[in-house]
Amino acid sequence: MTSKKPALPQLSKESLEKHLLPELYQWALSHGLLVYKPETPQTQTAMVALTTYPTPVPRACFESAQEVQVPFNELYARISSSDWLYKETKLLSASDEDFTGKLFAIQLKLDEFATTVSKDVIQPLRLGIFRSDYIVDKNSNSIKQVEFNTVSVSFSGFSGKVAALHQTLDSKGLYQEESNRTPFFQPNYEIPVSFPSAGFAKAMEVALSKYDTPNDRANLVVAFIVQRGERNVFDQKCIENELWENHGIKTVRLNFDDVLTELKLDANSNRLYMKHTGQEVGLVYYRTGYTTSDYEIEKDWDARFFLEKSYAIKAPDLMTQLSGAKKVQQLLTDDTILTKFVKDEHVKDQLKETFVKIFPLDDTPLGEEGKRLAMESPHNYVLKPQREGGGNNIYKEDIPGFLRGLDKDQWNGYILMELIDSDATEGNIICNGDSTFAVPILSELGVYGTVLFDHDSNILYNESPGWLLRSKFGDSNEGGVAAGFGCLDSVVLY
Amino acid sequence: MTSKKPALPQLSKESLEKHLLPELYQWALSHGLLVYKPETPQTQTAMVALTTYPTPVPRACFESAQEVQVPFNELYARISSSDWLYKETKLLSASDEDFTGKLFAIQLKLDEFATTVSKDVIQPLRLGIFRSDYIVDKNSNSIKQVEFNTVSVSFSGFSGKVAALHQTLDSKGLYQEESNRTPFFQPNYEIPVSFPSAGFAKAMEVALSKYDTPNDRANLVVAFIVQRGERNVFDQKCIENELWENHGIKTVRLNFDDVLTELKLDANSNRLYMKHTGQEVGLVYYRTGYTTSDYEIEKDWDARFFLEKSYAIKAPDLMTQLSGAKKVQQLLTDDTILTKFVKDEHVKDQLKETFVKIFPLDDTPLGEEGKRLAMESPHNYVLKPQREGGGNNIYKEDIPGFLRGLDKDQWNGYILMELIDSDATEGNIICNGDSTFAVPILSELGVYGTVLFDHDSNILYNESPGWLLRSKFGDSNEGGVAAGFGCLDSVVLY
Ligand SMILES: Nc1ncnc2c1ncn2[C@@H]1O[C@H](COP(=O)(O)OP(=O)(O)OP(=O)(O)O)[C@@H](O)[C@H]1O
Ligand SMILES: Nc1ncnc2c1ncn2[C@@H]1O[C@H](COP(=O)(O)OP(=O)(O)OP(=O)(O)O)[C@@H](O)[C@H]1O
Ligand SMILES: [Mg+2]
Ligand SMILES: [Mg+2]
Ligand SMILES: [Mg+2]
Ligand SMILES: [Mg+2]
Repeated sequence: MTSKKPALPQLSKESLEKHLLPELYQWALSHGLLVYKPETPQTQTAMVALTTYPTPVPRACFESAQEVQVPFNELYARISSSDWLYKETKLLSASDEDFTGKLFAIQLKLDEFATTVSKDVIQPLRLGIFRSDYIVDKNSNSIKQVEFNTVSVSFSGFSGKVAALHQTLDSKGLYQEESNRTPFFQPNYEIPVSFPSAGFAKAMEVALSKYDTPNDRANLVVAFIVQRGERNVFDQKCIENELWENHGIKTVRLNFDDVLTELKLDANSNRLYMKHTGQEVGLVYYRTGYTTSDYEIEKDWDARFFLEKSYAIKAPDLMTQLSGAKKVQQLLTDDTILTKFVKDEHVKDQLKETFVKIFPLDDTPLGEEGKRLAMESPHNYVLKPQREGGGNNIYKEDIPGFLRGLDKDQWNGYILMELIDSDATEGNIICNGDSTFAVPILSELGVYGTVLFDHDSNILYNESPGWLLRSKFGDSNEGGVAAGFGCLDSVVLY
Repeated sequence: MTSKKPALPQLSKESLEKHLLPELYQWALSHGLLVYKPETPQTQTAMVALTTYPTPVPRACFESAQEVQVPFNELYARISSSDWLYKETKLLSASDEDFTGKLFAIQLKLDEFATTVSKDVIQPLRLGIFRSDYIVDKNSNSIKQVEFNTVSVSFSGFSGKVAALHQTLDSKGLYQEESNRTPFFQPNYEIPVSFPSAGFAKAMEVALSKYDTPNDRANLVVAFIVQRGERNVFDQKCIENELWENHGIKTVRLNFDDVLTELKLDANSNRLYMKHTGQEVGLVYYRTGYTTSDYEIEKDWDARFFLEKSYAIKAPDLMTQLSGAKKVQQLLTDDTILTKFVKDEHVKDQLKETFVKIFPLDDTPLGEEGKRLAMESPHNYVLKPQREGGGNNIYKEDIPGFLRGLDKDQWNGYILMELIDSDATEGNIICNGDSTFAVPILSELGVYGTVLFDHDSNILYNESPGWLLRSKFGDSNEGGVAAGFGCLDSVVLY
């Protein structure tokens, strides 16, 4: 092992096109790195966008990102069940009526519902399936947190496959010219592989095992709540396959329409059942519901309420989802607030090490500073609303004009975040569809977390089952793979 | 376990289309049951054609087909290295100039070559990778052999996946209506799973381990000789993946052009090397070269000669390929000939049990009978030339006219085979592309064999690593999946 940053292969066009890419394509397709293309039949698929080579990441950064995951899981578990979050979300609802407001309205209905039923039909457990995203800051050479995702985190199934693909291509000597079919990176440099989807399945299995039921446990199912016309099916399928093949747990896939037509709540027990099969849903796992466009029709909000009020464990429940708000991330940079939830000073320092400056845009002194910075030095900042799913942020010079176009009372719904400055990687090649792009890329490291906890913040299970590297064109501001801006990558450590 | 033939599920349209098929498609695609469609980019693929349910096969038939495989392997190993085959092939060359003739011409050149070099640069080992195909005869309720394939047998990689798919769908209760999500077949009926591609890889590993080399063994590669524009890549990829993942053995894929440009023979040792990488090819595995159309240009015959003459082990060598001629199959139905190769009476009887009547069309008494039957009762027969790959046979009423259209001296190149009469299975559904076909199907059971032997018929390794079930529309005469006539299926035993 060495600590010099590895160069990337510089293959001739012939080596790339004749030897490396066909092997990469066939490996990827035959190992399930698939996505449905728009408007194609269900029996046809295409390779998901990915890089040709792994991208160098400093080992220290990689390890520190993983070290903080279990503490971050615990932090967000505590926040989720706190009065503090409840109050903050209530405040936020006012300045973000379309999304936070609507979700919080459901929470209010849930609170009301809770007063009308006996306590034992309310599920105390909740499952957090998180991903904390980082960029390696080039000035400090340390990881800085972009955001903490608390709902519908994707690519847990693909992450390990891409790493295994890169490892295989390297081991087979395909990263070298033909004259030298030896590994390019290994064994000097490690290409680590993790299988977060296996960890997700394990966490779900643990959750189900703690779910009490008078019925046959073998009949419990996990309901994957998915988008209509979802194209990223195969990533989700990895979790379903793990659940079935390693744990014998069945899954069903339901969109919000199906939720209202195919599920029913038992009037007495408040348990969730599949109407036609009679199977009890022990766990509701959301792969939709995280963005306004997921609620296409008014009834979709009813579907969400229906699921939330059931006795099934939710992954995540509403408040856990809301804990991932950008606003919460901003508030946690305030030491007084962080201290409420993290008692251990050393751990707190570790978490704080990953924070960059985030400002509110309200009437507090910090908010006033935020407003000033947004107007006077926007090039160092990104402006974020309370949204998920990419494509919502306002960058740099666009910020002042954007803010001026808003009513001042909406400013509170945004946070102003320092831009993390990272070194672009030269020499990697993005495969997207049948095209390749040899352009500088920027990478984002995501670390997955799974945590089972109850509404008193007791933690029953807390793991970090792996990571993800995604990369995007160096000149694109957004990094969502599904949104088409980025692609899957893997890590080569140095 | 019960011995009553199981019915197949009779699902409502809704259950089929809404629940079963999406799961089937996604499982199949994410587990690599793929084929390249014509004219699509290398990064896009489609599901291979397959049945929705497994097809009932009597356990006794299934077991007896497997029992005879190791003896059949041995039989064909003996035949391949016999003077008898050499003489018969020579005779056959005259009446089949286009294919047998051309292959045998290469054999003659090889013989000549052998006289010019020292014996130790001629490879004594050969690897047979076979598949014996059967149809369950409805009159005797026993298996009858359709043909014995000695070259480029396909679907070893897909066979196990389709069985695992059917097993999974059944276990998940998707073969039932929604009101009853329990298995339809299991545990009363078994859906067995075999992984022949793992067995192929094992046999290749054994072959390589017996291949002597002065070079670094870790650098030995297996060369897959493939068709130009091969679309059935993913089935072959399964063997490549097994070789790499379980045995650390590298593979290269070469078409006949590549053979002449990318390989070289060492003048002294006659060893085969990759020109640019310097890797030694220890084993040549043919997935092309079995049909006239595989030799698109004259140079392709040179490529074949080049490979055959090398010191690499061939899977199969020319004579082993030629042992799979329909003519040989016909001759083996003659007890005197079979007795030359099979000494054990009991084994001989077992093999003979699988034979139907096959006639030559020559001037022997049996040949005269064949000619008479061909003209007088053609509806009981199929006429076969010395060809592989499907689409070459002449059926029933078409036989007399076809024969009359030939020169009499070409008749010798054909054999007349009794048709095996099997019960069509009703109720299965073929998924081909995005269409489904609920039509009666006919099924063919293939049993794979792997045998390593030398030119003195010493047998070093002999295994039967699994099976394949293929089905086709009941009204189609041919069953080639790749040719579009048929599809992959699996077995449910009773
Ligand atoms: N502080 C930052 N510094 C540099 N780049 C950033 C920063 N914040 C966000 N970005 C870039 O913008 C992208 C989107 O931001 P973010 O992840 O916060 O939004 P999102 O809407 O939650 O998207 P998603 O949940 O789909 O990842 C990030 O992936 C990253 O590429
Ligand atoms: N004796 C027979 N009785 C019934 N059907 C037969 C018989 N012989 C052949 N068939 C049918 O014709 C198909 C093709 O025959 P056969 O397999 O002998 O030809 P082939 O050209 O070697 O094809 P391939 O090697 O691609 O399977 C078989 O799969 C089977 O469906
Ligand atoms: Mg993000
Ligand atoms: Mg996000
Ligand atoms: Mg055949
Ligand atoms: Mg054949």
